[in-house]
Amino acid sequence: MTRYDDLTELLLQLGDSAMVQAQRLCELVGGAPALEEEVALMNVGLDLVGQARNWLEYAAERINDGRTADDLVFLRDSSDYCNLLLVELPNGDFGVTIAKQFLFDSWHYAMLQSLSGSSDERIAAVATKSFKEVTYHLRRSSEWVKRLGDGTDESHQRMQAAIDQVWHYSFEFSMPTEHLAALEAEGVFPAASTVHERWSETVKAVLSEATLTQPEAAARNYLSGREGLHTESLGYILAEMQFLPRAYPDANW
Amino acid sequence: MTRYDDLTELLLQLGDSAMVQAQRLCELVGGAPALEEEVALMNVGLDLVGQARNWLEYAAERINDGRTADDLVFLRDSSDYCNLLLVELPNGDFGVTIAKQFLFDSWHYAMLQSLSGSSDERIAAVATKSFKEVTYHLRRSSEWVKRLGDGTDESHQRMQAAIDQVWHYSFEFSMPTEHLAALEAEGVFPAASTVHERWSETVKAVLSEATLTQPEAAARNYLSGREGLHTESLGYILAEMQFLPRAYPDANW
Repeated sequence: MTRYDDLTELLLQLGDSAMVQAQRLCELVGGAPALEEEVALMNVGLDLVGQARNWLEYAAERINDGRTADDLVFLRDSSDYCNLLLVELPNGDFGVTIAKQFLFDSWHYAMLQSLSGSSDERIAAVATKSFKEVTYHLRRSSEWVKRLGDGTDESHQRMQAAIDQVWHYSFEFSMPTEHLAALEAEGVFPAASTVHERWSETVKAVLSEATLTQPEAAARNYLSGREGLHTESLGYILAEMQFLPRAYPDANW
Repeated sequence: MTRYDDLTELLLQLGDSAMVQAQRLCELVGGAPALEEEVALMNVGLDLVGQARNWLEYAAERINDGRTADDLVFLRDSSDYCNLLLVELPNGDFGVTIAKQFLFDSWHYAMLQSLSGSSDERIAAVATKSFKEVTYHLRRSSEWVKRLGDGTDESHQRMQAAIDQVWHYSFEFSMPTEHLAALEAEGVFPAASTVHERWSETVKAVLSEATLTQPEAAARNYLSGREGLHTESLGYILAEMQFLPRAYPDANW
């Protein structure tokens, strides 16, 4: 994959993660367990598309090779995508969908909380706006984790199984400090080194209230979304997501 | 969709159906119920890819607008694909996979049997070669229908459910006579008008031996693979199948 400076890669990670999570949510159109839930899922997806656009527009300006945010979304192959592995995992049953959403939201919340105070004004503005949205996303997914975890025997078992299944992808939430130390020191990414700890506190509190058992700390993996080393799933997501602009490269609305 | 002369459209229907059926078989790599079966499924898929190439090379020559067989496969959108709707349906469980394969094979067998005697030497040659392969495909899928249909209670029920589920897509096997009358009269497609009847005899015999109930005659549908009116599934198949050549248009081995 092409490497950029640390800030640009952070922007790509935020933008790509929001975009891929949104794409997975879109797969659920017409398939949510209730109409109310369908509308909520799609609203979360729409928020994330907007956030992805904001991050990737900034990334595109910094990369400055003539590509737009649309080009980054629709014309990069999987090895150049920087999204978290978690968000590319299949939706599975509703428990898995919620487990993924909850882990993503709680990471996202801690990230955006820090970035809202960035010394980079553009980052601070995007993060502040996104943080409001993600506060709602996290509240919603936390409520589901609690309702299912502390529900019937079956819902408890399935929610626990879902958490166990996707948990180990959270290893990506603790970030390699060599890249972030400078950004933290400059104030571009304040409190970067505490993101994992704050994420961990949120998760601990929610899982406890949900009567769910928190798995062991997730070990590192040979895969790395940040380095473009993805699961098989991302290729299928991009094939579908990129079909139209690749088939009709000059298409306009 | 772009319309061509009747013979070219027949070639596209044969080529596209073989290609899409092969692509669905490829999805099963690593997922067959036994290694022996995996190898068999992949061999059938490979045969079909070869057949698709032969038909589509001839179609490309007749269309004569500079596109190759590869271009027809990789750069047409779903509304220009002429495959049978049956082959684009999801694989489902192994019963559905086999039901689709059996109905396709039995239609294919009757088609190729006629086309082997075509007055068009090229068609006769491709059909004769393909007919040998499809004779084996049909024997194999018939055996599975019988083994599962006349097996345990559960396998019987699931095989019956699978036949019932995909059966109505066989409405496309009886072809619109206006297009085929001329081809039949010229000897290009001998006995075209008896394909459906011969197909029906094969199916009747196999289902009977399998102790399965043959559903009612399939009614016409507003969809039509021949006219480029496809189910939602084809778009997803093509997105995946066409990703590489669309993403890397000048790629060579």
